[in-house]
Amino acid sequence: MVNLKEDERLDYLLAEKLRIIQSPSVFAFSLDAVLLARFVYVPIQKGNLIDLCSGNGVIPLFLSARTKGKITGVEIQERLYDMAIRSIEYNGLEERLKMIHGDIKEMPKALGHGKFDVVTCNPPYFITPSSDEINPNEHLAIARHEILCTLEDAIKASSQLVRQGGKVAFVHRPGRLIDIITLMRQYRLEPKRIQFVYPKLGKEANILLVEAIKDGSPDLKILPPLIVYDEAGEYTPEIRGILYGE
Amino acid sequence: MVNLKEDERLDYLLAEKLRIIQSPSVFAFSLDAVLLARFVYVPIQKGNLIDLCSGNGVIPLFLSARTKGKITGVEIQERLYDMAIRSIEYNGLEERLKMIHGDIKEMPKALGHGKFDVVTCNPPYFITPSSDEINPNEHLAIARHEILCTLEDAIKASSQLVRQGGKVAFVHRPGRLIDIITLMRQYRLEPKRIQFVYPKLGKEANILLVEAIKDGSPDLKILPPLIVYDEAGEYTPEIRGILYGE
Repeated sequence: MVNLKEDERLDYLLAEKLRIIQSPSVFAFSLDAVLLARFVYVPIQKGNLIDLCSGNGVIPLFLSARTKGKITGVEIQERLYDMAIRSIEYNGLEERLKMIHGDIKEMPKALGHGKFDVVTCNPPYFITPSSDEINPNEHLAIARHEILCTLEDAIKASSQLVRQGGKVAFVHRPGRLIDIITLMRQYRLEPKRIQFVYPKLGKEANILLVEAIKDGSPDLKILPPLIVYDEAGEYTPEIRGILYGE
Repeated sequence: MVNLKEDERLDYLLAEKLRIIQSPSVFAFSLDAVLLARFVYVPIQKGNLIDLCSGNGVIPLFLSARTKGKITGVEIQERLYDMAIRSIEYNGLEERLKMIHGDIKEMPKALGHGKFDVVTCNPPYFITPSSDEINPNEHLAIARHEILCTLEDAIKASSQLVRQGGKVAFVHRPGRLIDIITLMRQYRLEPKRIQFVYPKLGKEANILLVEAIKDGSPDLKILPPLIVYDEAGEYTPEIRGILYGE
């Protein structure tokens, strides 16, 4: 049994045999979150993971299928936090997954510095526009724009939360590559693996995945390109594998 | 008639109907140079272009087929400078192509600041190792290692030589992405276009192409992936087009 509110749906996370509460008017996860949850290094048997800007908890849910460790999600919007809590309960994952309703900027003080092996974050992508351009739906606006959390806030909090040698992984737009790299280095996070996602062969990249190590040595790899659609406009086998576990 | 010395050959630049003097023991151009010469923006009808760390002049020769502007090449090794001079003469390009035998660090003073519309550079890729690891062939060692020219030297000289709003394009290894981006921003060069070259689909990138604009506004694009070999190990149609003009 699950308690669905308003226009919420109970969607499948197909590859993981999990289900997740979503709502088109409040929050629905994107391919970006799925790709980040697959991209990031995770310790398999144990570990302490944290996901910032968690939304409806999609990344913690995906990660729960890849690790037996404990995963904390942090979400500032109560409505989304509430969706995440109910999804975790529906999937029976309360023992390993915990949600915190709060501001990521306060988490290092609340949870302690250097306590996490892995930090993930799918932050708001867009610099806050003028108020007449912004999405009038407050839930969507906060999730998409740097209203309550800038890129620097997210990278700073990640660096404080992760232990030395731990991993921090972000998904973002390729246009912010330089900002991300510059800010990561500023906060002692050394980028080690970057992957660009191209919607099709012959198209510019539209998703950037980056993983850094706290106080790591410089040694960057650009992973193989990830192509989303083939010539016929169908998902490539690699993307089908990620989405559906085929 | 051409005067070939020692083990020099007169090779074809196939796509451009030009020929170039090379030598396996002194210097032979790589795919990287060809890709940079094709990647960089060039003004077609006129303009003032300069290529730093020119080697045997491969990039000026390639660029001469793309622009009617004037092109200057700078090479510190006299032996390579001499090969470039003879190739330019052989191709009858003395009116538009000029070589300077000198140190790129001295060029801004010698040629003036902000006098060029476009700067290209295929610098030495490797941080200088200890002397027992270095290539005993001095010509190859200087071309490959940061012995006489570091990445920062090359980026600083480029920034000084290019006019405001002019373009600076480099080819390098992807592992140096962060250094390149950081140094470019430090010297007022804003990266605008980056392209990664992957030897094959499914493989990590092994070549990085980047173009920046002096005092440009931040707005980075990651161009479509360039794949060198297909599944059968043959050049892809895109690479064949670049190399052979097919």
